[in-house]
Amino acid sequence: MKRLTGILAAGTALLLSACAGNPAAAPGAAMSPEVTSGAVHERTLGNGLRIFVKEDHRAPVVVSQLWYKVGASYEHDGITGISHVLEHMMFQGTPKYPAGRFSRIIADQGGSENAFTAYDYTAYFQQLEKSRLPVAFRLEADRMHNLSLPPKNYAKELKVVMEERYMRTDDNPQALTNEQFDAAAFQLSPYHNPIIGWKNDIEHLTVHDVRNWYQSWYAPNNAILVVVGDVDPNRVFAEAERYFGPIKPSAVTPPKPRVEPVQLGERSIVVKAPAQVPYLIMGYKVPVLKTAREQWKPYALDVLAAVLDGGDSARFPSELVRGRQIATDVSASYDMTSRLADLFTFSGTPAKGRTVQQLEQAIRVQIDRLKRKPVSAAELARIKAQVTAAKIYQQDSMFYQAMQIGALEAVGLDWHIADTYPQRIAAVTPAQVMAVAKEYFVDDHLTVAVLKPQPLDGKAPHMAMPEGGANAIR
Amino acid sequence: MKRLTGILAAGTALLLSACAGNPAAAPGAAMSPEVTSGAVHERTLGNGLRIFVKEDHRAPVVVSQLWYKVGASYEHDGITGISHVLEHMMFQGTPKYPAGRFSRIIADQGGSENAFTAYDYTAYFQQLEKSRLPVAFRLEADRMHNLSLPPKNYAKELKVVMEERYMRTDDNPQALTNEQFDAAAFQLSPYHNPIIGWKNDIEHLTVHDVRNWYQSWYAPNNAILVVVGDVDPNRVFAEAERYFGPIKPSAVTPPKPRVEPVQLGERSIVVKAPAQVPYLIMGYKVPVLKTAREQWKPYALDVLAAVLDGGDSARFPSELVRGRQIATDVSASYDMTSRLADLFTFSGTPAKGRTVQQLEQAIRVQIDRLKRKPVSAAELARIKAQVTAAKIYQQDSMFYQAMQIGALEAVGLDWHIADTYPQRIAAVTPAQVMAVAKEYFVDDHLTVAVLKPQPLDGKAPHMAMPEGGANAIR
Repeated sequence: MKRLTGILAAGTALLLSACAGNPAAAPGAAMSPEVTSGAVHERTLGNGLRIFVKEDHRAPVVVSQLWYKVGASYEHDGITGISHVLEHMMFQGTPKYPAGRFSRIIADQGGSENAFTAYDYTAYFQQLEKSRLPVAFRLEADRMHNLSLPPKNYAKELKVVMEERYMRTDDNPQALTNEQFDAAAFQLSPYHNPIIGWKNDIEHLTVHDVRNWYQSWYAPNNAILVVVGDVDPNRVFAEAERYFGPIKPSAVTPPKPRVEPVQLGERSIVVKAPAQVPYLIMGYKVPVLKTAREQWKPYALDVLAAVLDGGDSARFPSELVRGRQIATDVSASYDMTSRLADLFTFSGTPAKGRTVQQLEQAIRVQIDRLKRKPVSAAELARIKAQVTAAKIYQQDSMFYQAMQIGALEAVGLDWHIADTYPQRIAAVTPAQVMAVAKEYFVDDHLTVAVLKPQPLDGKAPHMAMPEGGANAIR
Repeated sequence: MKRLTGILAAGTALLLSACAGNPAAAPGAAMSPEVTSGAVHERTLGNGLRIFVKEDHRAPVVVSQLWYKVGASYEHDGITGISHVLEHMMFQGTPKYPAGRFSRIIADQGGSENAFTAYDYTAYFQQLEKSRLPVAFRLEADRMHNLSLPPKNYAKELKVVMEERYMRTDDNPQALTNEQFDAAAFQLSPYHNPIIGWKNDIEHLTVHDVRNWYQSWYAPNNAILVVVGDVDPNRVFAEAERYFGPIKPSAVTPPKPRVEPVQLGERSIVVKAPAQVPYLIMGYKVPVLKTAREQWKPYALDVLAAVLDGGDSARFPSELVRGRQIATDVSASYDMTSRLADLFTFSGTPAKGRTVQQLEQAIRVQIDRLKRKPVSAAELARIKAQVTAAKIYQQDSMFYQAMQIGALEAVGLDWHIADTYPQRIAAVTPAQVMAVAKEYFVDDHLTVAVLKPQPLDGKAPHMAMPEGGANAIR
């Protein structure tokens, strides 16, 4: 159901901060149904800060996003979760703007702001009436190099993060299963670790560790500023120069490649946790845009995901949920924009009276069918129409437009990929879909995790979040 | 077969360097069958270097071992294998003694020397005629703080290490299976990673990384000097002060705890590799001396291992190998002296005509029997006699005596544990053996790895090394 709303919508795993509202749900700028897609203007400051500005004059507002090229996939064991803890601490003030002041200033200006941490980046953003953009720049520039990191606030904030981990993962059986699944599927890749970090690691993170992390990664030459809205690009560049220009660049050591070794055989794990319903997740190792030797393959995998799970008429909802009633929910998930090689996952919950084994078998039959029979012209036509519709819909959101540019550039991909995406999808043939199914959906590269529900002991059950699958926003 | 030769013999996983001979096999000092166990004299220098000296006057020789509290379990992903690479580079010279000079000086003095890297420590040692001890001190003190790390030698040595990894692991199906097994069993604990490091990590280690590692961990206050031989302790302390005393201590940051999360269900993996015979390894999470809340439990687990695998008359060789002929080789392995919580493993190769599943079933039956029926008095008596015999045998080797002290102290255990070990083993009751079997051998904490042999493609098969099991010297 969540497929093909665009290049980012499928599998972008990120942790939205607790503060402020969810901007994706309230973009605020969708005032006109017409697509008025402007050009993207790009400039790089002398200190290395890259800036992208996209004009969108449908409403007198602006979205500003500052992306840092650091996230959970830059971490190593012992300090997992540190990018997310630092993101929390970015709201704990600088000498000039102490804790809480940043958010209050933005709110006083009628704006909203938040941040999120993902595997491959950490981003901070504000939405404001267009003339207030310099306010956001002033504040972001300040905390790019003047963060206070007061030990007292740190201790308190670490507790907040621990509680967040408890609610999101430890007390959520499907999230817990996903976490165990990732740890089993990846041995060397940093995707082995959860974005929020392992509990024991978080508990032992010190403010000293966080300061080191901040100093290692937060610098203009490791950041990307994206502005979308009712703005004049030259004015934006001038204001950016004024506020961010004086910040000195620093030596940023690139992360180690940590290329996942080739998987040598199937892996399967059981996760026992208090839960009401079982849950299954299966994942195959696949390439992404950054790792694929042939660029059409990630697009073919994306089409394949849509064949199974792109809307109500896709195979999973029509055959496994409504038709044979094997699953109450089943999804296929793939994110071609990851920084490192990733997984194509299938996940779901068996229908009442059905077992996880039956669901796994039904998914395997679907996979087998993809290997044996080409997808139909009607299915491909539906997918292509969905992509075009999604593209139009996405343009409604300034926030989403900025997000696309930032997320692509932050992992070292070209933002033009977002523009060419519909054509690339349209070019995928039934033979290519069959080819990637055959090449990648092999047992030796498969990991399977099964949640075996345990008694709830009087606890209220925490069901899966509406987003469901392995890579959902969490 | 390899059980109960002493507190270290069972499961000490370490990588002996390629240079020089294996000292454990050639202790050189076993001239008298009498046990002449001397007292251990201990002193700490002003710079923090701890020194242990044990007199053994049976032969005019001396063993000197320098232990650093760093090894693979101090590493994190991205730089796995760095302790071992550094150990190799320690033979690549200082300004005063360029590459090769150290070994030649020791050889010229009629001595031998080598080094090894393990999960929890890295150690360097020399065996010499007793008057030559200061030569060893002079050289070790020099390379403790003056290592050259020349980039040219580094590039060459890294290739040597890559080749070592290929021979030990990539081209050895049982070692490869053990590596995959550890990675599946441990998620957060550094025992997840192989001592030699992941291939991709080794390939991307720079001499700069190695220099940082050297500067972080190689310091007198992070080292332990152990001397055993025909020496006068006061003379040894004076010489140690002379050579090591002038070295400045440095700030050593303790490693993060990285406590493995409780395992939530059984895990199983398949490893497909070119091989002639299949191989099975099963491991349960267990405490060790440093993590056990009740100190008798590690000893009970050690006795349990001996019941199954302590000599020819133990249950595994007599029942599974000779009796029912299910296995050609099957072993039980446990190391109570690990720095972090570890595994109790069962591993083996099915006999011709038997399957891995049959072997697993036979091992499970043996485990079940331990849970249901107390071990016999005769079995316990045999084990206790073996421990006493082993203790006497160990005293034959100066090298082994030094090794016991160093390995225990390097993980933060008291060396007296080696002395009290026979009494602690003797105190274990049948009820305690049954209790630990019931408490720890539960499916939810089990990981199983199965090697599925693939065609050898004309390659000469690399069979398991004689030591066999998961934690063997390798």
